[in-house]
Amino acid sequence: MAKLVHNITMKANKRVLIVGGVAAGATCAARLRRLDESCEIIIFERGPYVSFANCGLPYYVGNVIRQEEDLLVATPERFRQYFNIEVRTENEVVAIDRSRCEIEVCDRRTGQRYRERYDALVLAPGARPMRPPLPGVDLPGIHVLRTIPDSRRIRQWIADRHPRRAVVVGGGFIGLEMVENLVGLGLPVTLLERLPHLMPQFDPEMAEPIARHLEQHGVHVELGNPVVGFDEAPSGEILVRTASGAQHSAGIVILAVGVQPESELARAAGLEIGELGGIRVDESMRTSDPNIWAIGDAVEVRDIVTGQWCLAPLAGPAHRQARIAAAAICGRPVRFRGVQNTAICGVLGLTIAMTGASEKRLRQAGVTDYQAVYLHPGCHASYYPGSKRIHMKLIFSSQSGRILGAQAVGAEGVDKRIDVISMAIQMGATVFDLEEAELCYAPQYGAAKDPVNLAGMLAANVLRGDLPLADWNRLYESGALILDVREPHEFYQDHIEGALNIPLSQLRDRMGELPRDREIWVNCAVGQRSYYAVRFLVQHGYRAKALPGGLLTYYGFYG
Amino acid sequence: MAKLVHNITMKANKRVLIVGGVAAGATCAARLRRLDESCEIIIFERGPYVSFANCGLPYYVGNVIRQEEDLLVATPERFRQYFNIEVRTENEVVAIDRSRCEIEVCDRRTGQRYRERYDALVLAPGARPMRPPLPGVDLPGIHVLRTIPDSRRIRQWIADRHPRRAVVVGGGFIGLEMVENLVGLGLPVTLLERLPHLMPQFDPEMAEPIARHLEQHGVHVELGNPVVGFDEAPSGEILVRTASGAQHSAGIVILAVGVQPESELARAAGLEIGELGGIRVDESMRTSDPNIWAIGDAVEVRDIVTGQWCLAPLAGPAHRQARIAAAAICGRPVRFRGVQNTAICGVLGLTIAMTGASEKRLRQAGVTDYQAVYLHPGCHASYYPGSKRIHMKLIFSSQSGRILGAQAVGAEGVDKRIDVISMAIQMGATVFDLEEAELCYAPQYGAAKDPVNLAGMLAANVLRGDLPLADWNRLYESGALILDVREPHEFYQDHIEGALNIPLSQLRDRMGELPRDREIWVNCAVGQRSYYAVRFLVQHGYRAKALPGGLLTYYGFYG
Repeated sequence: MAKLVHNITMKANKRVLIVGGVAAGATCAARLRRLDESCEIIIFERGPYVSFANCGLPYYVGNVIRQEEDLLVATPERFRQYFNIEVRTENEVVAIDRSRCEIEVCDRRTGQRYRERYDALVLAPGARPMRPPLPGVDLPGIHVLRTIPDSRRIRQWIADRHPRRAVVVGGGFIGLEMVENLVGLGLPVTLLERLPHLMPQFDPEMAEPIARHLEQHGVHVELGNPVVGFDEAPSGEILVRTASGAQHSAGIVILAVGVQPESELARAAGLEIGELGGIRVDESMRTSDPNIWAIGDAVEVRDIVTGQWCLAPLAGPAHRQARIAAAAICGRPVRFRGVQNTAICGVLGLTIAMTGASEKRLRQAGVTDYQAVYLHPGCHASYYPGSKRIHMKLIFSSQSGRILGAQAVGAEGVDKRIDVISMAIQMGATVFDLEEAELCYAPQYGAAKDPVNLAGMLAANVLRGDLPLADWNRLYESGALILDVREPHEFYQDHIEGALNIPLSQLRDRMGELPRDREIWVNCAVGQRSYYAVRFLVQHGYRAKALPGGLLTYYGFYG
Repeated sequence: MAKLVHNITMKANKRVLIVGGVAAGATCAARLRRLDESCEIIIFERGPYVSFANCGLPYYVGNVIRQEEDLLVATPERFRQYFNIEVRTENEVVAIDRSRCEIEVCDRRTGQRYRERYDALVLAPGARPMRPPLPGVDLPGIHVLRTIPDSRRIRQWIADRHPRRAVVVGGGFIGLEMVENLVGLGLPVTLLERLPHLMPQFDPEMAEPIARHLEQHGVHVELGNPVVGFDEAPSGEILVRTASGAQHSAGIVILAVGVQPESELARAAGLEIGELGGIRVDESMRTSDPNIWAIGDAVEVRDIVTGQWCLAPLAGPAHRQARIAAAAICGRPVRFRGVQNTAICGVLGLTIAMTGASEKRLRQAGVTDYQAVYLHPGCHASYYPGSKRIHMKLIFSSQSGRILGAQAVGAEGVDKRIDVISMAIQMGATVFDLEEAELCYAPQYGAAKDPVNLAGMLAANVLRGDLPLADWNRLYESGALILDVREPHEFYQDHIEGALNIPLSQLRDRMGELPRDREIWVNCAVGQRSYYAVRFLVQHGYRAKALPGGLLTYYGFYG
């Protein structure tokens, strides 16, 4: 074990021990040193590595990241040289003696136990992949992915066994990233998701294009079909049994059904644990013990949109928390502002991103006073070659217009729009602010009315009463006349059953054909022409509403 | 001329005439119709087209956009059918009779003049490319680019004459876009810029990589060398004479030296004109005449950062102004919030973007109470293949930390970061907000500490007093010791003359070599290690400051 370098007078100084050195722990340690040269800092890491890029693990499995060392952001040697921080890998903290301000550590290489005293203790143990208690879940060939050794094992398994097919269980971020990487290795992949849609964080209608995209890329997707167990097949493969009765045999199975906070150490020490199982902290990331801080995937945090506690195992917030805990330990006034659940996932050329709350999450939180608009703009000016559609949903407060959340799916420019809206949400912006946003425009980058502007304009039109919206969920029970204002050749290709077709270009001449005593729900391809039509009809006294997002959103709701 | 369709009772209603139908005018007309079915709307456009994508013209010249019709966003027929708006192309408004609320129009095809009465008049005449009054400036083969016919003429000239070399005069947005497109056509290009750096909107040290990039792509760039005149060469080519005495012969010359507002009509009508030559308007885009509005490139607008009037010939603000004028004409309470000069340019794989004020603009406005940080992060996580550097500068208020401006140059991800910072500026955000931004992170999109976060952290470190900054402009007069904390092999490759090299990894052991009575200006590659070193040295009582942005920023200042 490397000895701590005592080249300045720190012996009598504050001693900060950090449990876990992957992401938040490592950042906290480095920040602490920058703020305070005098304290003693030791990182205890159960695994063999500190400061590694765990978000890169799926890409290491897929050999997109080729060298294991590429994943190492900083080595223990670097911590010592740059920061005078001691790192003890393969040393697991097994208990906290709060009354004595001591931890008990087990050196995993020798099995020896020892104790260390702390003035401040930082818990950054992370979260572990869930292994549902299903029959056969521990069969060889069934993998989870959290650490470098995990990914090494998966690589090795594929290299040794040459599996002919893979099953990925779970269609969230890690599941989709694993799908991409297994496909990249040439493996046929089946993706099984318990819920009726992929990306549980998304609203169902926004997730619809994802499954379609995966199928187009040869991935077999089964939704709403929970796995009930695993068997060994006579071939030596694994048989994945599902609730539908279907079985899938595979040479390798990846379990990506979520993570849970590693809060056992904290719980055993009597620290307050939240209802979701995460360590409870205050705004300075301090636990219920004033000498103990907790950061990263193991803690519960406030969702700034709903105000509720949540688990947000995300690297960005983890690093912010780490910096805040470090500053708090140094006595600086700091406050973690909470999370807004900004997240992104790339899968086979599709980008899926969100920020803020989904409708799902709002409903869970009891929020009902919101509305949503849908749009499908190009990622840049349509007149410049190569513009790809972005499917977007913007959710906003019906009263104030405050932006509550956004979801987007598309091939290009998705991350940019979600990042801009994320910044808007952070600053408490309203849809009227999005309308007035001044974003980069040259034809290969955006549009004079950027997708972000368009989302704001649509929402602002709704709030100003200029654009009454129909409700897709009530499509078949509303009794409204469905008016489709696309051109006949478009209508011919596909339309909502029972819809009446009057193209926008003829609407001024033919509005007499429309009933005045019945709601008219106007549809088109993406919601633009229906907006024009609704404006026209409403001003002429018709009870018209627009079906938000047009036929492309219809597909999200009704497949 | 198409007759206005009078299918609803509008004869007695408000009559809105719009002068200019390219961008702002067309948007204003369409928005007006959506807000008010009853008014009569006529667009008068001097040229042959309305609603065309003028930002696409350079790409049409370069044949990236292949068909002229791709540039047409909407046709007069579309305006009539969708919006019941009459469009009169090749009809030039030549005078405004404010006392009678009439305009005088010249039908350019017949030469006939006629008058039309208005209740509201909207001026959207745009801006025209400047043609400096130089000898020979009107020679054939010297082109400006504003309209579809302009770009058609340039295409035709190239097709007919097969020029062997092109000269582009002016290194701003349009100049650089023309360079890209002429290079794309296989033409050797010389770019002449009057100022000592490209992109006049940028600060010089941020523009430095642009010229280098162009040279690497075979473009001959001459800076600080104004054109003094043009001659016909015996070969039939054009001889471009410069102040340095150098001459450049070229088969085609593009003048891209800026635009000036088309405010003559307004001026002749006695409307108030600002000091910069643009039409003066209030917050609802109304001119000094209550029945006349003005929008787009012809008006002066408020810079929201400096509070000063400015000309901002940008499509985004033009469209926002158009919507606001339309709403104002309909009696709605609206307010144009001003511009923040967000702009972007792509040239040969490099993206150049900015938002808010440059240092240059702040100094012009008399603002001195600001600071700037530089950084050079990867566009995404360094451990994922293909991360490219973004050169960034963030300018912020020394007192409040409010973000004043940002500039960025790089191959990828530049537009995203500037858009996020643009939204932050719009919302009055501080650098502390950037520090806490929660942006999309997966390794192919960003980083756990996104470049935007890093910019905020750096600036916040400065404002909290944790990172005293040295001043590159005073490098050679400061008398400070330059300490380079990179490794010896890096130092060997290149360093600031006279610098002392002590690698960060040895600094703890060797700090005794440093003077305590002299300022120490610490340098490294990009500013990260120098930050660590400064934190260490300051806490040990040294008078250390960091040279912001490291050697990569040094190159910006000193080439």
